[in-house]
Amino acid sequence: MIRKEYLMTPGPTPIPHQVSLAQAEPMIHHRTPAYTELFVRMVEGLKKVLYTSNDVLTFAASGTGAMEGAVANCFSPGDRVLVAAGGKFGQRFAEIAKVYKLDVELYEYPWDEAADPEVIARLLREKPDIKGVFLTHSETSTGVVNDVKAVGEAVRETPAILVVDSISGAGALELRTDDWGIDVLVTGSQKALMTPPGLAAAAVSAKAWELIEAADSPAYYFCFKKARKKYNSDSPETPYTPAIGLVKAMSEAVELLLAEGMEAAWERHRTLALCTREAVSAMGLELFPKVLERAYAVTAVKAPEGIGGGDIVRHMNRVHGVIIAGGQDRLKGKIFRIGHVGYYDFFDMAVALSALEMTLKELGFDLELGSGLAAAEKTYLEMARK
Amino acid sequence: MIRKEYLMTPGPTPIPHQVSLAQAEPMIHHRTPAYTELFVRMVEGLKKVLYTSNDVLTFAASGTGAMEGAVANCFSPGDRVLVAAGGKFGQRFAEIAKVYKLDVELYEYPWDEAADPEVIARLLREKPDIKGVFLTHSETSTGVVNDVKAVGEAVRETPAILVVDSISGAGALELRTDDWGIDVLVTGSQKALMTPPGLAAAAVSAKAWELIEAADSPAYYFCFKKARKKYNSDSPETPYTPAIGLVKAMSEAVELLLAEGMEAAWERHRTLALCTREAVSAMGLELFPKVLERAYAVTAVKAPEGIGGGDIVRHMNRVHGVIIAGGQDRLKGKIFRIGHVGYYDFFDMAVALSALEMTLKELGFDLELGSGLAAAEKTYLEMARK
Repeated sequence: MIRKEYLMTPGPTPIPHQVSLAQAEPMIHHRTPAYTELFVRMVEGLKKVLYTSNDVLTFAASGTGAMEGAVANCFSPGDRVLVAAGGKFGQRFAEIAKVYKLDVELYEYPWDEAADPEVIARLLREKPDIKGVFLTHSETSTGVVNDVKAVGEAVRETPAILVVDSISGAGALELRTDDWGIDVLVTGSQKALMTPPGLAAAAVSAKAWELIEAADSPAYYFCFKKARKKYNSDSPETPYTPAIGLVKAMSEAVELLLAEGMEAAWERHRTLALCTREAVSAMGLELFPKVLERAYAVTAVKAPEGIGGGDIVRHMNRVHGVIIAGGQDRLKGKIFRIGHVGYYDFFDMAVALSALEMTLKELGFDLELGSGLAAAEKTYLEMARK
Repeated sequence: MIRKEYLMTPGPTPIPHQVSLAQAEPMIHHRTPAYTELFVRMVEGLKKVLYTSNDVLTFAASGTGAMEGAVANCFSPGDRVLVAAGGKFGQRFAEIAKVYKLDVELYEYPWDEAADPEVIARLLREKPDIKGVFLTHSETSTGVVNDVKAVGEAVRETPAILVVDSISGAGALELRTDDWGIDVLVTGSQKALMTPPGLAAAAVSAKAWELIEAADSPAYYFCFKKARKKYNSDSPETPYTPAIGLVKAMSEAVELLLAEGMEAAWERHRTLALCTREAVSAMGLELFPKVLERAYAVTAVKAPEGIGGGDIVRHMNRVHGVIIAGGQDRLKGKIFRIGHVGYYDFFDMAVALSALEMTLKELGFDLELGSGLAAAEKTYLEMARK
């Protein structure tokens, strides 16, 4: 059989052909009216994607760069911040905050559960000098999705700002930046925004700007103030040379998302997640997260007794050309993850599930071929009928 | 006439078609053998381009990100550093160093001259606690190119490290990172490396690593230690999601450059610069830099009496579709700049010079049409004959 490859990881994700080809257009200069028009259209489109009227700043970087920007721009050494961490990406915020010598209050919640908004509210009451709360919207490493809206309600009435990493959430999951009181929303291009990696964005509220004016940590490449100033100038641009090809690409991708409609895109991801979830359960596998509400970006599945998660990932890749992800850090070998965040439809899931069924069979797991697919199709037909 | 566009700025620059199209290939995951092989080939190729066997670290960012990385990784607040600045990009190093609260000794040299290696040697003798010297190889804002080799000789015997921005130099101008004693060489993808913007690199020497081990400034996204560790692992990668499309593109571009041969590429740029220089002189214009030795990346020309540099740039763009650059900061309106760093041959220069001749004529400058082109062709034939 020829080898076709199917990218089913939770980022990077497949790129729609018009987005891919936008990058191959002739290079243009970033201080020309043609670029300015493209750039402004992309940023204004992103505001719609993120449900925000706050300033949206973009950086030639992957999402982690914008995460660092949030820390460096808003806080000073010694500032107390609360980091809610229930996976690799929550931990990343704590790591960055420590590098910037912030006083980190770490709220670690179990990796298979969501952060408890009540705990965050209590910690904010107990330590009223907390200046910022860091939360992961979609924890890509575990599949768990946090209740950002509820956390936003807890943070809103305090002096603290709410910083949310929605790198694998934005575009896939319900996200209402302004309504939910998110002060710094960070995202990246390579997941539901259907663009290659290398472009990051941060949406910054008025409450955050007040902190930024007072903060004293070094920030140059990711300087929010400079980025805002350059965007709000007569000829909107970025302080440093932008990733022009990626801006072209993301501009196309944002138009595709807005044409679909954000609520439709969220519902599509929910549908794909429920189909995948029903399928793996029908195969006799167990989902990793205990909290499945909102967990529609990536389906994390426990490796069955006697078979390593890495073996499943490798076999699916080598034998079937279907690329999924394994577990990271403490979950290495214990889980595998199927991404459905981005440019996916039902049949992409059918491919992944078919490859998974055959892989499990080949690795000696007892299952009836087709049982997972049947459950996925049944779920899909039921959901489509509504 | 139809409008075809000709990008003749000193970055971004035109992209060879195979480099453009590499980005449009299907997305791949960055933790797969296919990506690892591509990435390692690119990095090892870059080492040849930069004449270095030092660690070469890459970042999804534009060049300024790697400049900040050099400051943040090598120094601690209060460290004394010497910044040689003779243009906008030399000043940028001083700005970044100040953001990181370094004690900046600023050696400002005239914008139309090169840094004097003797002055740097003297300052190092006078202030032996200087821990780093920052130098711009090719000062894109003025066209001046510094004698990095001579500065390297002055710095080599001191405890200070030499940090060089060769964003518009690398690939275009003679650059021998190791032989010249450059401890941190910073470059970006979008100039002579013939790749879209968004990928930066830093080559780091053993002497620099010693400083890095002792330094205490915050660095996360641009952390050199983490980048080295990830590259030197069993499965070389970057700490955070790389700009996969740009790595594909730069991998192609590096192969093109190496196939040409670095010395041939340098000679090509010298030829294009001398042709351009002879042409504008024959048109009756004056070059901006007083120091023309090594100035082969961008030709900066004084706007003639009574005509603004911006008028020339705008007219060439609007009427002829040829995009050149104006002056920046204090040179705004006073000069214009023709780039010939990157994927250019003689006929690209012929286009730019033809458009310039017609533009000058249309703006009322007294010149004989064809005079510049004639000088360029004559120079080209003479140089080609050697």
